[in-house]
Amino acid sequence: MRSFSFYERVSRAFNDYPSLSKFLVVFTVSGGGLVAYAEANSTNGAPAIASSESENVKKKVVVLGTGWAGTSFLKNLNNPTYDVQVISPRNYFAFTPLLPSVTCGTVEPRSIVEPIRNIVRKKHSDVQFCEAECFKIDAENKKIYCRSTQNGKDEFVVDFDYLIISVGARVNTFNTPGVEEHCHFLKEVEDAQRIRRTVIDCFERASLPNVSEEERKRILHFAIVGGGPTGVEFAAVLHDFVKEDLVTLYPRVKDQVKITLLEAGDHILNMFDKRITTFAEDKFGRDGIDVKTGSMVVKVSEKEISTKEMKNGQISVMPYGMAVWSTGIGTRPIIVDFMKQIGQANRRVLATDEWLRVEGCDSIYALGDCATINQRKVMEDISAIFSKADADNSGTLTVKEFREVIDDICERYPQVELYLKKKQMSDIFDLLKESKGDDTKESVELNIEEFKSALSQVDSQMKNLPATAQVASQQGVYLAKCFNRMEECEKNPEGPLRFRGTGRHRFRPFRYKHLGQFAPLGGEQTAAQLPGDWVSIGQSSQWLWYSVYTSKQVSWRNRVLVVTDWTRRFIFGRDSSRI
Amino acid sequence: MRSFSFYERVSRAFNDYPSLSKFLVVFTVSGGGLVAYAEANSTNGAPAIASSESENVKKKVVVLGTGWAGTSFLKNLNNPTYDVQVISPRNYFAFTPLLPSVTCGTVEPRSIVEPIRNIVRKKHSDVQFCEAECFKIDAENKKIYCRSTQNGKDEFVVDFDYLIISVGARVNTFNTPGVEEHCHFLKEVEDAQRIRRTVIDCFERASLPNVSEEERKRILHFAIVGGGPTGVEFAAVLHDFVKEDLVTLYPRVKDQVKITLLEAGDHILNMFDKRITTFAEDKFGRDGIDVKTGSMVVKVSEKEISTKEMKNGQISVMPYGMAVWSTGIGTRPIIVDFMKQIGQANRRVLATDEWLRVEGCDSIYALGDCATINQRKVMEDISAIFSKADADNSGTLTVKEFREVIDDICERYPQVELYLKKKQMSDIFDLLKESKGDDTKESVELNIEEFKSALSQVDSQMKNLPATAQVASQQGVYLAKCFNRMEECEKNPEGPLRFRGTGRHRFRPFRYKHLGQFAPLGGEQTAAQLPGDWVSIGQSSQWLWYSVYTSKQVSWRNRVLVVTDWTRRFIFGRDSSRI
Repeated sequence: MRSFSFYERVSRAFNDYPSLSKFLVVFTVSGGGLVAYAEANSTNGAPAIASSESENVKKKVVVLGTGWAGTSFLKNLNNPTYDVQVISPRNYFAFTPLLPSVTCGTVEPRSIVEPIRNIVRKKHSDVQFCEAECFKIDAENKKIYCRSTQNGKDEFVVDFDYLIISVGARVNTFNTPGVEEHCHFLKEVEDAQRIRRTVIDCFERASLPNVSEEERKRILHFAIVGGGPTGVEFAAVLHDFVKEDLVTLYPRVKDQVKITLLEAGDHILNMFDKRITTFAEDKFGRDGIDVKTGSMVVKVSEKEISTKEMKNGQISVMPYGMAVWSTGIGTRPIIVDFMKQIGQANRRVLATDEWLRVEGCDSIYALGDCATINQRKVMEDISAIFSKADADNSGTLTVKEFREVIDDICERYPQVELYLKKKQMSDIFDLLKESKGDDTKESVELNIEEFKSALSQVDSQMKNLPATAQVASQQGVYLAKCFNRMEECEKNPEGPLRFRGTGRHRFRPFRYKHLGQFAPLGGEQTAAQLPGDWVSIGQSSQWLWYSVYTSKQVSWRNRVLVVTDWTRRFIFGRDSSRI
Repeated sequence: MRSFSFYERVSRAFNDYPSLSKFLVVFTVSGGGLVAYAEANSTNGAPAIASSESENVKKKVVVLGTGWAGTSFLKNLNNPTYDVQVISPRNYFAFTPLLPSVTCGTVEPRSIVEPIRNIVRKKHSDVQFCEAECFKIDAENKKIYCRSTQNGKDEFVVDFDYLIISVGARVNTFNTPGVEEHCHFLKEVEDAQRIRRTVIDCFERASLPNVSEEERKRILHFAIVGGGPTGVEFAAVLHDFVKEDLVTLYPRVKDQVKITLLEAGDHILNMFDKRITTFAEDKFGRDGIDVKTGSMVVKVSEKEISTKEMKNGQISVMPYGMAVWSTGIGTRPIIVDFMKQIGQANRRVLATDEWLRVEGCDSIYALGDCATINQRKVMEDISAIFSKADADNSGTLTVKEFREVIDDICERYPQVELYLKKKQMSDIFDLLKESKGDDTKESVELNIEEFKSALSQVDSQMKNLPATAQVASQQGVYLAKCFNRMEECEKNPEGPLRFRGTGRHRFRPFRYKHLGQFAPLGGEQTAAQLPGDWVSIGQSSQWLWYSVYTSKQVSWRNRVLVVTDWTRRFIFGRDSSRI
C-alpha cells in the first residue's frame, strides 16, 4: 500500500490544485533568482561604505538575542552610523512556527534556521556577532556581562550606548513538580530534535521482546500538556507521523499508540474563533486523539502524570511514555534580576513605554516576548490633555480647539480608537456628543468634568499584545526604523504632542497590525483566522498556510529548503532513523 | 563576492560539462520513477506469502549489526523459510563513504541513512528488528544476550539456528593516551554531526572579544591524525568549508585558520598508486594544508598533541583546537570475548573459513570489518590434493588426471590464480612445466615432490582483504545467496572438491572483486584508482565519483536526497548554524 503513495500523492495534488501547486513552484524558483540577483547588487558596495564610516565615532548598539525581535531589528537597521554588536547563545535565527513540523521530520531543522552572520554580512552597517549569553545588565554604567556558551567559563564585559533586549521568554512550568525533569519543551530547535529522537525511541523500545503488554501501552502513550496552537499542532503532526509512516514500519505495536491532549481550560485553541475550536475538537475526536479539557496537570513523575479535574477536584493518574509541555511563557532570570535593579520588582513582566523603551531607562529598549508595552491610560493624563487642548485657557473646550488635538490623542492613546470601533462610532465627536446629550456637533463645548466623563470608559479597551512571532517581528521592524531616523527625528519630531510636557515625541508610538493566525490540524488541514473575522478551515488553508509561511520566511534559502523538504516528505515519507 | 557564486557555479558547471550534468539529473529523476514503480509491484504480494509460510517451522537467523555487511545480507536474502531477527544499536543503515561530507554540511546526515525497518519491510521473508546491543554470544547453546541501547537496563536472550555476526570494528587508538577523551572519531553519523558542531564552535569561540591572539590560533588549528582515505578526505572537505563558506562569515579570524594532517608513514594515501599520492601531497601543499608525514602521535591532552618524528625520535608538541583521529580499526570487546570462548584467543582478528563461517562454529558466520577470511594454504593440503588428483593411485600425476581437478584447485585456492597472473602464465601447466623443465605439455608427469616444489611459492600471494565497505557489501551479498539456496545446494553441492574429505563443498567460496577506490581531494577534485591500474585525477573524477557513489547508494530515496543536498549546497553554500 505505502509504496503507491508517491503516485497517489502526486496525482491527488495535481488533480485538486493544478494551478496552485504549479504557481507555488514557479513562484519559488523565479523569485529565488530575482532575490539572489538583488542581494548580489546590494552587498556590492558594502565594504567601502563601512570602512569610510568607521573612522567617525560611532554610537554602540548592543542587541541581546537572535529571535524574531532581535533578527527583524537587525535586518531592518541600515544606519551606518552605529556600531552594532549582537550577543546571543544561538548563532542562528530559527523560524519557530515550523518547529512542530521539525519534531516529526516534515521539515528538517537546518531548513528553518539562518546563520546570523549570514544575515549581518549583508548589512551596510558595521555588525559584529558573539556567541555568548548575557547574564547581567548594568543599566547605570551601561555595561553588560557575558559568558561564552561553550564552557561557561570565559566571561567578558561589553559597553553600550543603546541596549536592545530581545532575549525572549522561558517555558512556564507554573512550578508543577517534575516538569523540568521529565517533560519535553518545544521552544528551541534542539527541543524539536530531541522530541523526534524520543518518539522513535519509544517505538523502538516498545518493539523489544521483553516488554510486557502493559509497559508497551505506557511507552506508546504520548501526552501533550497545553491546548494552545503549539500543543495542538504538535498533537496533529505526531498523529500524522504515526498514521502515515510509523504504523507501516512498526506494525506489531501500532494498536497500542495513544495521543492525549491535556488542557486546563474548557476548550483547546481558546484564543481562536468558536468555529475553529469546535472543528479542531471534532477532528481530533475522529482522529482518535484524546482531548481532555478542564484537566490540570499537578505532578509529573518518570512514568506517570497526575491531573486534577477542574470541575470536581478529582485527582487521576495516567502512565505515559513521552510528555510535551507547552502551556505558556515565563520571565527569564536575567530579566527578573534587571527588573529588581530598575525598580520594576513588583511587576510580573518587564514594562516598556509605547516606544519600546524600558520604563526608567533612557537608552535601553526591550521587545518581543521578554517585555510588554505599558500603555498609558487616558484617565491618568486627562487633566493634562484638557489643559493642552484648551488653547485659550477658557476652562471649556470648543470644537475648534478639540479638532486641533484629536489626531494626537488618537495616536498617543490607541485605546480611544478601539473604543470608538467597539461602539461603532465614526469619530470622537460622537463620543463627546453622547456624553453631552447634544445633537449639533459644532456647538459642543465641554468643561473638564464633562470631558472626563466622556472618556471614562476608554481605558477598558487596553489589551496586552500576545506573545507571538508576529508581534516581536513588527516591534523589531519598528525599532529599526526609529534607529534609522534617530538624528532626523531628533531635529524634526514626528510623534504626537507631549500632553504632559512641551513639544512633540520624537517618533510615532509602536502600533501592532494583526495579520491573522493559523492552526494546522494535521491531515493537510489548517484552520485560519484572518483579520475581519474571516475564518477558513480545510484543505485549501494548507496551501494558504504554506504560502504565508514561505513568504514570511526570512531568507530565500530557507524558502527553497522548506519547499524541497516538503517535496521530499511528499515523495518519500518521513524518516524514522534515530539520528 | 560571495553572493555572485550562485551564478558563477551554475554557469561554470554548464559550460564545462553540459552533457554530463544534464545526464546526471535526467538519470536520477527518471530512474527514481522506474524504481518506485518496481518497488510498488514487488511489495504487493508480500504479506500473503509471509503469512502462508509462517505456519511451517522456520529456521531462526539472527543478524547482528546494520552496517554494510549486515544490510547487504538482509537486502539480498529472499528465502521465506527463514525467520530473521536483526539486532543492532542503530535502527538505520548509514552510507559511510559520505560521512566526511556530512562533517561540513555538504550532505545532510539524514540523506545518507535509511531506516532498517524500511529495508526489511520490502522483503518477502519474515524479518524483525530490535534496537539493542548484543553483549555476549553463547556459541554452545546457540543463544545471544542483548541489552536495550536506551537505558542499558533491559536485557533479553535470543535463540538462533544461524548467527550472522556483522558488528563491524571499533576505532583503534593504539592505546595512545588521551585519544579517547580528546579526539573526535569518524565512524558513525553522530561522530560527523559532532565534528560539524565542533568546527562551528571553534570559529565562534575564536571570535569572542576576550580571546588572546595566541589562544585564537590554537582554537583554529585543526589536526587530523591518519593519512588514509578518510583522514585525507576530511582534511579536504574541511579546507573547502573554511575557504568557500566560513572565511566570508568570520572575516576577522580567517587568517588564523590552520589545518594539519599527521601521518606516521612516509606518504599519505599509501594504499593508492604513487601518482595519486604525489598529486594529493602537492595539492594539499598548494591549498595550505600542512602535511606532516613520518610523524607519530604519542599523546593527546586537552589542548596539545605530542608527536614523535619517526626518523630521529624527536618529540614535539603542538597546540590544537580540534583533533580528528582516523588511523585504523580494532576488534570490538564482544568479538574478543567470543574469540576466547571458541579457542581463537591467540588471534588478532576473528577468523572465518572461505565460506565466511567462523572457524570452529558450524552455524555462526562473520563478515565485514569484524572478521578476516583465513585462506587455507595450498602447502597445508598438498598431499591430500596430490592423492585426490592421482585417481589411479599410481604415485604420479598425469596431465589427464590433473586436468580433472584443475578447476577445483583454482576455486579452492584462489592464490594459485593470483600467482599465475603475477608470473604472467596462462594456466597451471606452465607452472608445472617450469618446475619440471620440460617443454611438451602433454607428456608432463609429476611425483609428489615435484608437485610440491611446483606449487611451493603459490601461498606467498595470499592477502587479507582490506576493511572496506566494498568487501563487507560483497560478503553480505555472497552469504545471502548461500542462504537463499541452502536446501538446494545441500542436495546438489556446487562448490569445489573436498580435497581432505569426500564429495564437494556445498557452495563456491567467497571471492572479492575489486571495483576501484576513490579519494576526494577537495575543490571538486577526486583521485580515482580503478581496476587495471587505471588512474584518474581531476575535475572529471568528481562527476565520476558522484555517479559511482549515487549508483551504489542503497535506496533511491538516498540518491535523490544526496543529489538535492549537493544542489542546495551548490546554490546556497553550507550552513554554519550551530545545530
